[in-house]
Amino acid sequence: MSSASRDSVTVVLDWGTTSFRAFLVDREGSIVEAKESAQGIQSVPKGEHARVLSHALAAWRNEHGPLAIVAAGMIGSRNGWLEMPYVPTPAKAADFAAASRMIDLPEGDRVMFLPGLTDPTAFPFPDVMRGEETQLVGFGLEENIVVVLPGTHSKWAEIRNGRIERFRTFVTGEIFATLANHSFLSKVATAKANHATDAFAEGVALARDDSGKAGGLLTRLFAVRTGWLAGKIAPEEMKSRLSGLIVGWEFAEARAGGWFKDGDTIAVVGDDDMVEVYEAVARAFGVRLAAAPADAAIRGALAISGRGRR
Amino acid sequence: MSSASRDSVTVVLDWGTTSFRAFLVDREGSIVEAKESAQGIQSVPKGEHARVLSHALAAWRNEHGPLAIVAAGMIGSRNGWLEMPYVPTPAKAADFAAASRMIDLPEGDRVMFLPGLTDPTAFPFPDVMRGEETQLVGFGLEENIVVVLPGTHSKWAEIRNGRIERFRTFVTGEIFATLANHSFLSKVATAKANHATDAFAEGVALARDDSGKAGGLLTRLFAVRTGWLAGKIAPEEMKSRLSGLIVGWEFAEARAGGWFKDGDTIAVVGDDDMVEVYEAVARAFGVRLAAAPADAAIRGALAISGRGRR
Repeated sequence: MSSASRDSVTVVLDWGTTSFRAFLVDREGSIVEAKESAQGIQSVPKGEHARVLSHALAAWRNEHGPLAIVAAGMIGSRNGWLEMPYVPTPAKAADFAAASRMIDLPEGDRVMFLPGLTDPTAFPFPDVMRGEETQLVGFGLEENIVVVLPGTHSKWAEIRNGRIERFRTFVTGEIFATLANHSFLSKVATAKANHATDAFAEGVALARDDSGKAGGLLTRLFAVRTGWLAGKIAPEEMKSRLSGLIVGWEFAEARAGGWFKDGDTIAVVGDDDMVEVYEAVARAFGVRLAAAPADAAIRGALAISGRGRR
Repeated sequence: MSSASRDSVTVVLDWGTTSFRAFLVDREGSIVEAKESAQGIQSVPKGEHARVLSHALAAWRNEHGPLAIVAAGMIGSRNGWLEMPYVPTPAKAADFAAASRMIDLPEGDRVMFLPGLTDPTAFPFPDVMRGEETQLVGFGLEENIVVVLPGTHSKWAEIRNGRIERFRTFVTGEIFATLANHSFLSKVATAKANHATDAFAEGVALARDDSGKAGGLLTRLFAVRTGWLAGKIAPEEMKSRLSGLIVGWEFAEARAGGWFKDGDTIAVVGDDDMVEVYEAVARAFGVRLAAAPADAAIRGALAISGRGRR
């Protein structure tokens, strides 16, 4: 029974720190059904993950029989269900499969935990990712290209010769969120950031300025306040301005670090809204954009687990 | 009556966003008595400042007669008692006196509000300070030197030919506070930052590294997390490491902006604890330190108001 049902569908699990998401997909990678809740791993006591997961997926199990579940990302971290190792760069898709781990659950479900990825060449400590490596595999490792994965901790990865060659993290999303919600801005700024505004574009332009007259990031950030004091930035423009400046600064740092130069082609992989933001900044920095699938995480989970269409 | 009592003592008012501090000082600038409360300007409704101040200083008025009060800083801002103008750089002590404003209160007290300072050469918007200009006057404008004033919004100012020539703001304290309290660090980090630790010194060293291998600030900040994941940074070391890195990065940006070079002499002016932190970083960056008085704000208020010893 179980092997037949397990062949027809796969559950791709995206169980993060503050949210639970599960996708029931067919062998083509098409989403048959999705479940989402706010029960992130930080709200689940150690030892309770199997029970919570079994309960959440009961309806799918009733319909399809015992489930094959593929789990990447933070559920396999120190604060999650179990701590999976990190595969070192350079890494190809088969390396992730070889380092995965299977756990059989009481109801007959089988969970395949995927490992993370570490870049031991980072200074001063090895860099790490959990989940983005699966998105990179889903994007495809055939062409040599730099891929940006926006997020709280944005990643820049280089794909070369069918492998993830190296990557670096930028804490862009975290800096934006903490400043937008807890700084001098938070009492004045009103509207959410919107990348389709002049304020966002002006923030990007300020990040791109390399004449030296604007100072470094710590000084440029203050310009959101001084622009408001000077009557040049309205309260509803402040977060857009901040977003453009900080994401733009990520590109300025990446350019200085040799990740791209004017006219290069890169790809942006992730959720639609953040991809739009990053693509807007990439264009402002003179970068061409390669097409990228919206469902890279699901494609990657199927590819690494061998459960996709061959 | 009032003129006699007003000659003997001065009240220097430091009424900030979240705290009220007042110092009763003699003509030598010595503190006779101090009052402090948590009644910052943000907790006082518009129009109520005179009443709150009169009540807070009643005992001093009873003893010394109507008071001469000098007020610099945020009490003279848009969110304070009244919005004072900004004097433009380059500015000398007399320029602040000329732009000050007197208000007589019902009980006979007289408040002298000091203006702020703006640097119209900053890009893309004029830079601003409120209160630090008074500290700079109290430090003294006789020698040509760069002065650093640590804080939520740290200032670097150049004193030249008896004037404050230019200045720039760095949002160092704000970045540290928001990351220490609201980021990935906040759930793991334990002890407060301590500049007398190896972790702080290692953070400074990472900021100072200009080989390019460590990336920019957005990447270096992530090393506080990866160092913890690698078992190289203990939870109690994380905030010290972060503090050293961020204050160190302020110095790296200031050096890149031409504010100092190896072997230069600068001064650090402010509260004792932050002065110690900044002086530790300055030494790590190969800078010599000029002596600076701890009571620069009081000296400056007396000097600008003409109420100090001639």
